Amino acid sequence: MANALRNSAKFGFSGVLSQLSSHSRNGRVCVSPCFSLQRRNNSTSPKIKVDLDSSTGVAVLKMQSPPVNSLSLEFLTEFCINLEKLEMDKSCRGLILTSTLSKVFSAGLDIMEMYGTSPERCGEFWKAVQEMWLKLYGSNMVTIAAINGSSPAGGCLMSIGCDYRIMADNPRYSIGLNETQLGIVAPFWFKDTLVNTVGNRTAELSLELGQLYSAPEALKIGLVDQLVPQDQVLSTAQDTMSKWLAIPDHARQITKSMMRKQTIDKLLSNREADITNFVSFITKDSIQRSLRMYLEMLKSRKV
Amino acid sequence: MANALRNSAKFGFSGVLSQLSSHSRNGRVCVSPCFSLQRRNNSTSPKIKVDLDSSTGVAVLKMQSPPVNSLSLEFLTEFCINLEKLEMDKSCRGLILTSTLSKVFSAGLDIMEMYGTSPERCGEFWKAVQEMWLKLYGSNMVTIAAINGSSPAGGCLMSIGCDYRIMADNPRYSIGLNETQLGIVAPFWFKDTLVNTVGNRTAELSLELGQLYSAPEALKIGLVDQLVPQDQVLSTAQDTMSKWLAIPDHARQITKSMMRKQTIDKLLSNREADITNFVSFITKDSIQRSLRMYLEMLKSRKV
Amino acid sequence: MANALRNSAKFGFSGVLSQLSSHSRNGRVCVSPCFSLQRRNNSTSPKIKVDLDSSTGVAVLKMQSPPVNSLSLEFLTEFCINLEKLEMDKSCRGLILTSTLSKVFSAGLDIMEMYGTSPERCGEFWKAVQEMWLKLYGSNMVTIAAINGSSPAGGCLMSIGCDYRIMADNPRYSIGLNETQLGIVAPFWFKDTLVNTVGNRTAELSLELGQLYSAPEALKIGLVDQLVPQDQVLSTAQDTMSKWLAIPDHARQITKSMMRKQTIDKLLSNREADITNFVSFITKDSIQRSLRMYLEMLKSRKV
Repeated sequence: MANALRNSAKFGFSGVLSQLSSHSRNGRVCVSPCFSLQRRNNSTSPKIKVDLDSSTGVAVLKMQSPPVNSLSLEFLTEFCINLEKLEMDKSCRGLILTSTLSKVFSAGLDIMEMYGTSPERCGEFWKAVQEMWLKLYGSNMVTIAAINGSSPAGGCLMSIGCDYRIMADNPRYSIGLNETQLGIVAPFWFKDTLVNTVGNRTAELSLELGQLYSAPEALKIGLVDQLVPQDQVLSTAQDTMSKWLAIPDHARQITKSMMRKQTIDKLLSNREADITNFVSFITKDSIQRSLRMYLEMLKSRKV
Repeated sequence: MANALRNSAKFGFSGVLSQLSSHSRNGRVCVSPCFSLQRRNNSTSPKIKVDLDSSTGVAVLKMQSPPVNSLSLEFLTEFCINLEKLEMDKSCRGLILTSTLSKVFSAGLDIMEMYGTSPERCGEFWKAVQEMWLKLYGSNMVTIAAINGSSPAGGCLMSIGCDYRIMADNPRYSIGLNETQLGIVAPFWFKDTLVNTVGNRTAELSLELGQLYSAPEALKIGLVDQLVPQDQVLSTAQDTMSKWLAIPDHARQITKSMMRKQTIDKLLSNREADITNFVSFITKDSIQRSLRMYLEMLKSRKV
Repeated sequence: MANALRNSAKFGFSGVLSQLSSHSRNGRVCVSPCFSLQRRNNSTSPKIKVDLDSSTGVAVLKMQSPPVNSLSLEFLTEFCINLEKLEMDKSCRGLILTSTLSKVFSAGLDIMEMYGTSPERCGEFWKAVQEMWLKLYGSNMVTIAAINGSSPAGGCLMSIGCDYRIMADNPRYSIGLNETQLGIVAPFWFKDTLVNTVGNRTAELSLELGQLYSAPEALKIGLVDQLVPQDQVLSTAQDTMSKWLAIPDHARQITKSMMRKQTIDKLLSNREADITNFVSFITKDSIQRSLRMYLEMLKSRKV
């Protein structure tokens, strides 16, 4: 991984990744404690590629934004546009999310969207994070996360926003909402989604300690549904999708909505307040200091 | 089973049962994907038999409506009358639900109550389904399901309405809320009861996929509490009942109410809307077409 | 234990303890079915000892009220005062709760506070029970229960009020909310705390049956988080505390509040009604008779 990613960005998360990897006590692939760090680029090359198989009605959405599929405003916007297109396409019934990167599904929210940015930009960014989750958690399509690499923080949120999670059976890959480890807090709707997935007590422990779980641990607590060898993640997702698509759409959709509507409505009716909270929290001097220290640490490790 | 049931009804579910059994990929006793099909009869023979042991205060309610204990309006009415009698009988402290049929506890709601019936009849039927659940889930008695056969859909609802579930340890018996497999949707109070029993995530998976669980699988996810050999289901229920009756009634009842009241109140305050929803959904052309296709399939299999 | 405790109180729970121990069918150390019985003494010796290590910011609160750390009004008052002091001491970040007694963490609420006492005293007592839970469940400190002995009823509530539970790996120690066994009812906030810890269904079974779980059983259902040998309970708590203190306080505190606020607010907005309910329930003739019978049973066993 170090070699694969080292040269992909001058001031990027990749170098940190390799450093962190080599410092990792437990051998996991560490893709940041929480947020990814990535130089903002103005590349017009798409960060996301979508393949829709019209014979099966299944789309595969591939995240392809090296080094670590950071969730920047740009990335999220592109993600939401693609999701919306598929949602409106009646020929598309199922969606598989995966990554083209080796060893990383998504490293989560882009830290550069939160450090030293204006409150306006910050708010715009947070709205996009909300939008991504709202679209995913409430999708009428069957959504399956083919988690072929580590998936901390926002990457984990994306995963638990799906209907089903298949992860590569590699103990070096980790997944979890590890925000507190960075001094940041997962908002109530991250929490609600996690509680809905693993139950109240496991979510409590997980969030307070900012725990990252190895793939086997994640399976054990129900954070993912299935582990398969790395090279079978996508094919298993396709097989699983067939099983889900055997269920009549309207019945499954009504049922899904019944399960998730309350959680979604809670954010919908508190969306502005949630943005305000986030912006006022993240722009605090103390939090910005934390982020700066974290960035310095990343830079110094790179040297 | 095929032999046992084949001759029990001219145009009944039993024949289908045997057909489905022989087509079953996993060897389970399939008692319909969701609803049972049974010619309406006007038999005055009771569909339910109740034995109350006045020395122990324990009643055994035996469902004896061949071929598969379908929950017709007639059946449900008789069920509720019996339940209410026991509830008002101060000498009765505990209730064991079981079936006299071999291999089937209850196949769930009678499909003939939903196909081609008038909205009025449909509404009356649904009200009876509500009533059955309200009486069972809120019973002051200790209620134990002695599940001595398969128990899909409404049969599962009946089971999870009890305080404790003992199932025959037979991997061919299955239990679950499999409504979506038929294009039908379990209403919110089925869902709430399932969530209360197996937790949110398992309920979500279970309901969206309309999963039927074999007895061992059902134990694993907590859908039933205990498996015992078929011939010990009833005696184990009696033993378990003694343990429950050792707890002072008033303390247990207050505690039970504390655990279940909120879920019950939710239906009580939405009862009319829930009936309206059901009737308007089930009488839709598309749903009636689904049901007709299902019935045709059953008939063609019988030939 | 019999020898250790037999002489510690003339009319106390200790004698009962030894009797119950010897009658125990399953070898568990029974510290009353529910409440402890202890002669009210006016001893001015502190029932609680607190050691705060200023180098680590970790306080150890030792309950040292023989024979069984009964939660009397006096005990609870002292407990709350100590807790409040630590909460306001900015140098204190973590709290470990443990017992100096051999084999008992806490036997729970003092039955003598509920039998034959005036409604006023009863209400005052219950308010102190509420206060203890509110302070503990909502503490900004990291709270770890080092459960080095049995912990029924109120002792269990204290434990599940903490962030993490380490119990001595001794199958003779038990823990649980066993109120119904005595004809008493755990109030809604005991229930909510248990549901938050072990989930709805396990809580339902547990509360309706008033189940006490052996240490291994408690681990299995998630009522405690970890078992270690008796002599390592405290040191493991200290090690675990270090792990928790590695998380920035503000992020952990906001997250903890997000997880627990709703449950706490429910009691806060129903506090007076809850006291009224308790007093009117506990002073009922029938309940007082139950308590008297229980006390007679204890006395007769002592003779």
